[in-house]
Amino acid sequence: MALIVQKFGGTSVGTLARIEAVAERIIATRKQGHDLVVVVSAMAGETNRLITMAQALCADPDPRELDVLLATGEQTTIALLAMALKARGQPALSLTGDQVRVQTDHRHGKARILKVDTAVMDQALARGQVVIVAGFQGRGPDNAITTLGRGGSDTTAVALAAALKASECQIFTDVDGIYTTDPRIEPQARRLDSIDFDSMLALAAQGAKVLQVRSVEFAGQFQVPLRVLSSFSEGQGTLITYGDSADEGVCGVACCGQSALIEVSGEGLDQAAPGRLLSPLQDAGIDADLLDTVFETGKPLTFTVPLADLGQALPMVQASAIALGGAKVQCDNTVAKVSVIGGGFEADTKMASLISRVLGEQGIEQRLFRTTPKRYSLLVDRAQMEESVRHLHRALIPQKSSS
Amino acid sequence: MALIVQKFGGTSVGTLARIEAVAERIIATRKQGHDLVVVVSAMAGETNRLITMAQALCADPDPRELDVLLATGEQTTIALLAMALKARGQPALSLTGDQVRVQTDHRHGKARILKVDTAVMDQALARGQVVIVAGFQGRGPDNAITTLGRGGSDTTAVALAAALKASECQIFTDVDGIYTTDPRIEPQARRLDSIDFDSMLALAAQGAKVLQVRSVEFAGQFQVPLRVLSSFSEGQGTLITYGDSADEGVCGVACCGQSALIEVSGEGLDQAAPGRLLSPLQDAGIDADLLDTVFETGKPLTFTVPLADLGQALPMVQASAIALGGAKVQCDNTVAKVSVIGGGFEADTKMASLISRVLGEQGIEQRLFRTTPKRYSLLVDRAQMEESVRHLHRALIPQKSSS
Repeated sequence: MALIVQKFGGTSVGTLARIEAVAERIIATRKQGHDLVVVVSAMAGETNRLITMAQALCADPDPRELDVLLATGEQTTIALLAMALKARGQPALSLTGDQVRVQTDHRHGKARILKVDTAVMDQALARGQVVIVAGFQGRGPDNAITTLGRGGSDTTAVALAAALKASECQIFTDVDGIYTTDPRIEPQARRLDSIDFDSMLALAAQGAKVLQVRSVEFAGQFQVPLRVLSSFSEGQGTLITYGDSADEGVCGVACCGQSALIEVSGEGLDQAAPGRLLSPLQDAGIDADLLDTVFETGKPLTFTVPLADLGQALPMVQASAIALGGAKVQCDNTVAKVSVIGGGFEADTKMASLISRVLGEQGIEQRLFRTTPKRYSLLVDRAQMEESVRHLHRALIPQKSSS
Repeated sequence: MALIVQKFGGTSVGTLARIEAVAERIIATRKQGHDLVVVVSAMAGETNRLITMAQALCADPDPRELDVLLATGEQTTIALLAMALKARGQPALSLTGDQVRVQTDHRHGKARILKVDTAVMDQALARGQVVIVAGFQGRGPDNAITTLGRGGSDTTAVALAAALKASECQIFTDVDGIYTTDPRIEPQARRLDSIDFDSMLALAAQGAKVLQVRSVEFAGQFQVPLRVLSSFSEGQGTLITYGDSADEGVCGVACCGQSALIEVSGEGLDQAAPGRLLSPLQDAGIDADLLDTVFETGKPLTFTVPLADLGQALPMVQASAIALGGAKVQCDNTVAKVSVIGGGFEADTKMASLISRVLGEQGIEQRLFRTTPKRYSLLVDRAQMEESVRHLHRALIPQKSSS
């Protein structure tokens, strides 16, 4: 008998029939003798429906109030799932993020979890209830309702698993595990039985959409045993492992078409410039990436931000550039980021040469590239992203032995 | 400059366009210099949509979880209205029932408000924000989400007005005030400029749907100045007045087609019987009415319950009857209740004679009747309810001087 946290995403609870199927699966797990905390997302399409309503009222809805609106999505799912369980004779208790006291910071729409209170869940589990928790949402300062951003339910599940010291955190989704790359781009992509934590983090951060990057960070921080598996089929999925991450070579190719490049050049760039340019972005929760860590006077500073954050990031960077003494800011929103994930890149310049050769043979220009121990990331024209992924995957990832 | 509580019902916020119209009305009131707390219902149709979803999962959804589900309706409205206000430059703050700490008892689906905390609202008002509160919902024991039953947003508005010591509580609805009877039944019905509290309470309790009876009780308990007016037209509506309720004669005719009659007869009926039969109903929040207050040995005990509660009430009455020594229980779900509301009925047997004569002339049988100081209620066959209302209204209520 173990305590398991299960998370079911929007597609898995997308219709009443699917909610009933999830109820049956939960009961089956209970019959194996496990205690269960279940985290659910809003029913597929519901969050978009709510956003559309808000945007019909105002182009740029107030972030606090948008969170109040979006939080109804998961609240609807927890109520329906708890009802379905109780109607089947399985004691259950639904809890909103606020009721669990998922304490977050103040950043509406992209809040970070600070603390989770397990008391209410512990009591319910002790009473034999399955605990159904609304993912994606928390309680910020002044008891305001906050949301964690797209995919935030994964983070809720991992945070609860960490706080409850669960035996395993199972993320049920519409794919059956972590793949070497997006199978919609490269049909030869294959499912991994396991992946080491650092590679998983790099994959998620560089565009693999299966897990929200923050959920992976959280899992690593508390060494939560994390498994990604399909809610529509049987199978063991992919287990994220911890411990000595031996250099296993390349394990995946990730890509992100939703990137924008910002370049700051000219006057005023000194050693303090990177910090002064990036810390306002960091405070606003905008992830800057691909910044050159080696500063040279006179060389422009380049970095990427998520395309969706460009409108918010640009005025901040402009303001910093003016404060720095009039540096020039340019941006390019036609780029895509492709990342080769694996071990030993920094020590191994052979990999960089290989990547350059593969792309060069196809006439694909690398606009920028950076290396970290776990990845080699490069920018290409967005139109060439999928092509780049396919060629790199075929050249770097061992193919399936039989298909 | 005064503090006003305004409540907008489901029809008044039934579409995004109507929510925008409510936002404009709120801003107009703010420009007159008033502080505002606004209570809103779920958008028209939303509560039914949610109930339909729940019933598709299970015929009899768990009451706690149904409240979690239904509470999303008002939460959606507060978010959208607060967004609309902020987009127009009017500072606003949305609050759920839980965030206001509308403390209720445990009765899911028909909870009663015990206490309201004004601290959060006071702070927001001091900051110049319009406070937008989700009606119909509260926080029960164990921080569970509770709802107050259909029309519960009126009660929320009155409870907030009482707690905040507001100058006036304005209930905006789709009719322009309190009428002498339902204008859909009797076109000669006319709007009252004012009505004394006791008559309003009797009207609401006996079927006038404009205000929830609990909201009127609450208003009376705290002498909240209460006004009912239309959100679609200008006009002063109807003001509920307190103080010496002079005998103003008949002021309205109410009816309720959703009644059922229960008769307990035979063995075991003693003076303790009425209490033993009714207290379980009371505990369950079921309003029994028309009980004969004069007990005579051997005479059957008769009373009505709301038709919707009959299924829940009957087994309770049966159990009490068995405990009493085997009294016989019968019920009739084909009745309707008609009530003539006004002053001085108990002292005045002439009114009873007049009513009997009016109905008698039309061949309508009074199945049962009871008199209290503020009303004369009778049961008729449901098919004769509207006819009874029309004849009593024409005979007892002064007609409009010109139409």
